Amino acid sequence: MPHLPDITTLGIDADDTLWQSEQFFKQSEQRFAELMAGFVSGGHLAERLLASERKNLKYYGFGIKGFVLSMIETAIEVSGGSVTTEVIGEILKLGHTMHDHPVVMLPGVVDTLRKLSGQYRLVLITKGDLFDQERKLAQSGLAPLFEAIEIVSDKSVETYQRIFANEAGSAAQALMIGNSLKSDILPALAAGAGAVFIPHPLTWAHEQAEPPLGHPGFFQISGFSDVLGILNRPA
Amino acid sequence: MPHLPDITTLGIDADDTLWQSEQFFKQSEQRFAELMAGFVSGGHLAERLLASERKNLKYYGFGIKGFVLSMIETAIEVSGGSVTTEVIGEILKLGHTMHDHPVVMLPGVVDTLRKLSGQYRLVLITKGDLFDQERKLAQSGLAPLFEAIEIVSDKSVETYQRIFANEAGSAAQALMIGNSLKSDILPALAAGAGAVFIPHPLTWAHEQAEPPLGHPGFFQISGFSDVLGILNRPA
Repeated sequence: MPHLPDITTLGIDADDTLWQSEQFFKQSEQRFAELMAGFVSGGHLAERLLASERKNLKYYGFGIKGFVLSMIETAIEVSGGSVTTEVIGEILKLGHTMHDHPVVMLPGVVDTLRKLSGQYRLVLITKGDLFDQERKLAQSGLAPLFEAIEIVSDKSVETYQRIFANEAGSAAQALMIGNSLKSDILPALAAGAGAVFIPHPLTWAHEQAEPPLGHPGFFQISGFSDVLGILNRPA
Repeated sequence: MPHLPDITTLGIDADDTLWQSEQFFKQSEQRFAELMAGFVSGGHLAERLLASERKNLKYYGFGIKGFVLSMIETAIEVSGGSVTTEVIGEILKLGHTMHDHPVVMLPGVVDTLRKLSGQYRLVLITKGDLFDQERKLAQSGLAPLFEAIEIVSDKSVETYQRIFANEAGSAAQALMIGNSLKSDILPALAAGAGAVFIPHPLTWAHEQAEPPLGHPGFFQISGFSDVLGILNRPA
């Protein structure tokens, strides 16, 4: 169990913790629903798309490209093959638009990271598409504040054990900060680190889980700048 | 300029250096040409696909998912939109087949890596899709032979400088081994490392370049096990 004064290292998630991500997926999904309105209701389409994304995780992993491929698959399936190639072309363009979108930082992030970087080893731990994560990190200008950047294909207990062993000596000296209970909070706690949950109003259905209320290493705050309050709390 | 007796670290490419990769892209392209035979000749299709892949590199980076997305885009374009959704469904399946394909090691690789791993720091340096590269590495069983594994989005001079500074102290103590003149050989030489080129009969058009004949740090061999001969050459 981490003891706050022993914390030397902060693991920090990127998508929807440092910058907006899910909102661009949701915007694309909304446009996808408009494109497919002649075939299927929005609610049913969302369900079929999520099923396709989950089934395809083993092929595609996380990220925009897999999302676009799953939208195309879903479009063909729900339309019984009668979707037009014009619509498929539009779906391809949705992916380009997502890739082109400039990074939108979340409130308080830049200032708080600057303050934290003098006091802690900051390690960015993000999953998803290497290419896209590197693009966003470069655009954010935040890379110099991090001692290490770990872009991983998935966030398991072993992922956190390995990274915190390398970067902090052990997980007991580390705190993971993120918006996904499933990927940031539960596996980090299981690895022996503390975990700070910052809920984001938009979180992908696949990332949802029950908050580990009552776990002594678990903290919940409402915005990134509240991390300072947790760390400066009297021991 | 590297002096062979000073070499402590070997950077080693993965796709088409350790295991087959391009042959699966070529097989998919052949099947793609069959699917599109009613619309366009194979030669013209290959040209249009390469143009689409190159244009999309800035969105997709390297890997199977971007390849599949570029095939779909090309299919719609060359057919003037009249390709069927059945064909597009088949293109999606080509991607699944590529992801499902077991890793096929190149001759001599496993034995040679085992011999080298006792004498040198081995660093795997591969570009492309994180998720797919991790899958292949896990399947190969070779991960324990490497001191470090670097899956990068692109292989630039800076990439090699950074990795060899971290892993070898400096590029002058490192040798990069790979099948791509453009990604493995030229940028590694420019970074100050030596470079061992192992041509592979199938190399993607985008990876081709002129061999730097006459460069004193450049070696060319015909198979992976010949690396031992280069390194054991009298100084």
